[in-house]
Amino acid sequence: MKIVILGGTGNIGRGFALRWGQMHDVVIGSRNSEKAITVADEYTRILNERGFDSKIEGMDNKSAAEAADVIIIAVRYEQVPSIIELITPVLKDQIVVSVVVPMEKDRCYIQPDPTVNGHITIDASKSEYNADYFCYTTPAAGSAAAEIEKLLPCDIEVVSAFHNVPAKKLADLDIELDYDIAVCGNCMHSKKIVFGLVNDISNMRPLDIGPLETSGMVESLTPLVINIAIRNKMHDVGIRFV
Amino acid sequence: MKIVILGGTGNIGRGFALRWGQMHDVVIGSRNSEKAITVADEYTRILNERGFDSKIEGMDNKSAAEAADVIIIAVRYEQVPSIIELITPVLKDQIVVSVVVPMEKDRCYIQPDPTVNGHITIDASKSEYNADYFCYTTPAAGSAAAEIEKLLPCDIEVVSAFHNVPAKKLADLDIELDYDIAVCGNCMHSKKIVFGLVNDISNMRPLDIGPLETSGMVESLTPLVINIAIRNKMHDVGIRFV
Repeated sequence: MKIVILGGTGNIGRGFALRWGQMHDVVIGSRNSEKAITVADEYTRILNERGFDSKIEGMDNKSAAEAADVIIIAVRYEQVPSIIELITPVLKDQIVVSVVVPMEKDRCYIQPDPTVNGHITIDASKSEYNADYFCYTTPAAGSAAAEIEKLLPCDIEVVSAFHNVPAKKLADLDIELDYDIAVCGNCMHSKKIVFGLVNDISNMRPLDIGPLETSGMVESLTPLVINIAIRNKMHDVGIRFV
Repeated sequence: MKIVILGGTGNIGRGFALRWGQMHDVVIGSRNSEKAITVADEYTRILNERGFDSKIEGMDNKSAAEAADVIIIAVRYEQVPSIIELITPVLKDQIVVSVVVPMEKDRCYIQPDPTVNGHITIDASKSEYNADYFCYTTPAAGSAAAEIEKLLPCDIEVVSAFHNVPAKKLADLDIELDYDIAVCGNCMHSKKIVFGLVNDISNMRPLDIGPLETSGMVESLTPLVINIAIRNKMHDVGIRFV
């Protein structure tokens, strides 16, 4: 199976390439084909050093999409319309997987108020009162994946997945990923192909959340786990549903 | 500490009463005070049989709220405006904790389409193609907790929590709950009191998600874990962030 990662030179793309490159043909797509080739060569070298007979390719996003069986959209939300416009002419029967998350970073300044509830003294200098946080910003269609589906030709199936795997750990091949991955989409056939891609990575387990209408809940797991890491002295947080 | 559970005769109220009743004064609030007393007596008996010297009280929602240090709002989303109107006259400095989740049940009928992606045969009789699912329905204010905060007097602090603990397991005292509970709110003092209430229950761990603005992400964990249970042959699903 040929898996193409659009925006594949980013953090999450590195992890996908190094994991799936072990058993699938992987192509890194980028706006800059030279950058894509350089990065792909690096991933090839890492996998070859570990004994895998892999050859990751790099090319521009449009050429990459044309060659794909599965297209992973791993760009920023703002780039979605332009990348869909770019690849639409070369789409035939590829499955499109959205990893996209629309979110905003904010910062809260909680005021110390010794009168709240009558009996407290808050130390406002503590970082917990002045910490960054992220919020999911719901698109008009309900989710990034639903926006992507609206922009694509109607016979292309969209699956939403991989929003709750920490990119850094995904890219570290020494780490066994014991996580669950929430997956949603309207076509069970496409979802099952994505379930297979989840199972191809270490100990990860795919979980079906429902049709694409549930993607907002799935995508909002990204800012949720980031907030958990930032505000609770944790790192690279994933999820187990138990 | 006196913990009052409004809508406390429901599933999640049972779990809270049986867990917190072991070390706190717990009051079950209900529209029907007779029902509240009957249910509270049952919880008292269960705890007494297990050797706890507990006395759970039952009363109407308004009287219960007046007596509280912490008020848990455990009613359906549609009942929020009326219950807030009811208790507002008796509010002083109570902390209000929202467990409320606005969500809708739906059912997807995925059509078998042998032409999708060219090479499949879907068996539409399989339950996975015709399964219920729930979607979070975002209120105008962004979350149920934010709606509650808008309806309350401005000096009452709202914390949003306990959306991702399975009610059935919470109410089963033989089960050790090894879960994480996402907590958000604007006042760190109130949040820390709720962290304490989480820690009072078995092995549960509180995690700070951020200010109340993040409550939509927290509340949508409820339909998410329900969908996971329904669609993946699991039961009473909770979450560990790892």
